[in-house]
Amino acid sequence: MQGVRFLGFDVFGTVVDWRTSVARELRPFLQRYGLAQLDPAAMADEWRGMYQPSMEPIRKGERGWTRLSVLHRENLQAVLRRHHLDPTLIPEAELADVTRAWERLDPWPDSVPGLTRLKSRFAIGTISNGNVSLMMWLARYGGLPWDVIAGAEPTRSYKPQPETYLGTAELLGLRPEECALVAAHNNDLKAAQACGFKTAFIPRPTEHGPGQTKDLRAEAAWDAVAEDLVDLAQRLGC
Amino acid sequence: MQGVRFLGFDVFGTVVDWRTSVARELRPFLQRYGLAQLDPAAMADEWRGMYQPSMEPIRKGERGWTRLSVLHRENLQAVLRRHHLDPTLIPEAELADVTRAWERLDPWPDSVPGLTRLKSRFAIGTISNGNVSLMMWLARYGGLPWDVIAGAEPTRSYKPQPETYLGTAELLGLRPEECALVAAHNNDLKAAQACGFKTAFIPRPTEHGPGQTKDLRAEAAWDAVAEDLVDLAQRLGC
Repeated sequence: MQGVRFLGFDVFGTVVDWRTSVARELRPFLQRYGLAQLDPAAMADEWRGMYQPSMEPIRKGERGWTRLSVLHRENLQAVLRRHHLDPTLIPEAELADVTRAWERLDPWPDSVPGLTRLKSRFAIGTISNGNVSLMMWLARYGGLPWDVIAGAEPTRSYKPQPETYLGTAELLGLRPEECALVAAHNNDLKAAQACGFKTAFIPRPTEHGPGQTKDLRAEAAWDAVAEDLVDLAQRLGC
Repeated sequence: MQGVRFLGFDVFGTVVDWRTSVARELRPFLQRYGLAQLDPAAMADEWRGMYQPSMEPIRKGERGWTRLSVLHRENLQAVLRRHHLDPTLIPEAELADVTRAWERLDPWPDSVPGLTRLKSRFAIGTISNGNVSLMMWLARYGGLPWDVIAGAEPTRSYKPQPETYLGTAELLGLRPEECALVAAHNNDLKAAQACGFKTAFIPRPTEHGPGQTKDLRAEAAWDAVAEDLVDLAQRLGC
């Protein structure tokens, strides 16, 4: 990681536990609307399952730039319809609040102590597909000590498009090799590496619940591999 | 300030003491290049004096979007030429380092404690004409605990253009009246107020040195007026 000045972090899954947190937020909502028989964690998976497909038309240029918060809201409505709940019958303020579940995701236990240590030596920030306001409220909720919010919205592109990584480096006035992506997802690291970024992998083996099968380990020779963010700080001498 | 969720701060002058800090950075540089007879504080004033004029062609659309760090560099070269020092004779790395003086500005003594208290109740961020990387390194240098870096670069506009304030509110998903500008400059507050922002004034009577004549007091009925950022936190119940 020599020469690296900025560590950019994937956020959903890598820094925060979206599945448990979204399920917790969904539970009372589902109960209120007669869907108590649904498993909130499965519902969180279903909602998150529409994440990648909903960004695809934007990546392809078939749809203009649209923030993730808007996609989250559209995807929630689609999931509700799939379960025969008409979202137009739900008060606007309540739909908006449920969508903001993505601003109330718990950090993994090592995230805040690890980031705090890493920040002593590197500038740290987000390289997430989440939009700026979502990332800002999420950081305030969990106490994530970012120096900067970068990634999708400032570059108007969605990972793994090269623009998200290269545009972040450019925004920060750095060369790609002065930046590293930290992520729990091998495909994200692969895309960053192709842009000249350094790479660091940490596993999050329960991101997708107890039966997770992918991203259980580093699948390439990333520049750093650690157990979690505290271990990464240790390995990088912070 | 009822209903306000985000406090956006002017930075140069309001949060950091640019004049003393830039003078400190210029002193050894001027000595090295035979300009020790110049007063570094006067030189800092001269450099800063080109700040507003250099943004003007960009505001008018006569020049494309250009980051403040680039303008700072051009303005430094112009000031040196004015004092008969040819900047092309100076090593590139040294000119770059002197330009980065703007990333090493000391916060006023009340800034970090005040911001820390204000952050307990409000989201806080920059609404500065400084670009994102400048603001990021400056925050790291002084320990400024921003939740977000907004303002000029994310909105591709320079204050007091309405786009800088309105674009920041839009980026954060807030209505203008949910945002307040905190500044030591009456004209900045006037422009923000015209956009629907709430306003808070604090005086920085030595920003321009001992002989300062402007912005010594609130010149309009701003929503809040305080002695400094700690006093503002007190008044806002933080």
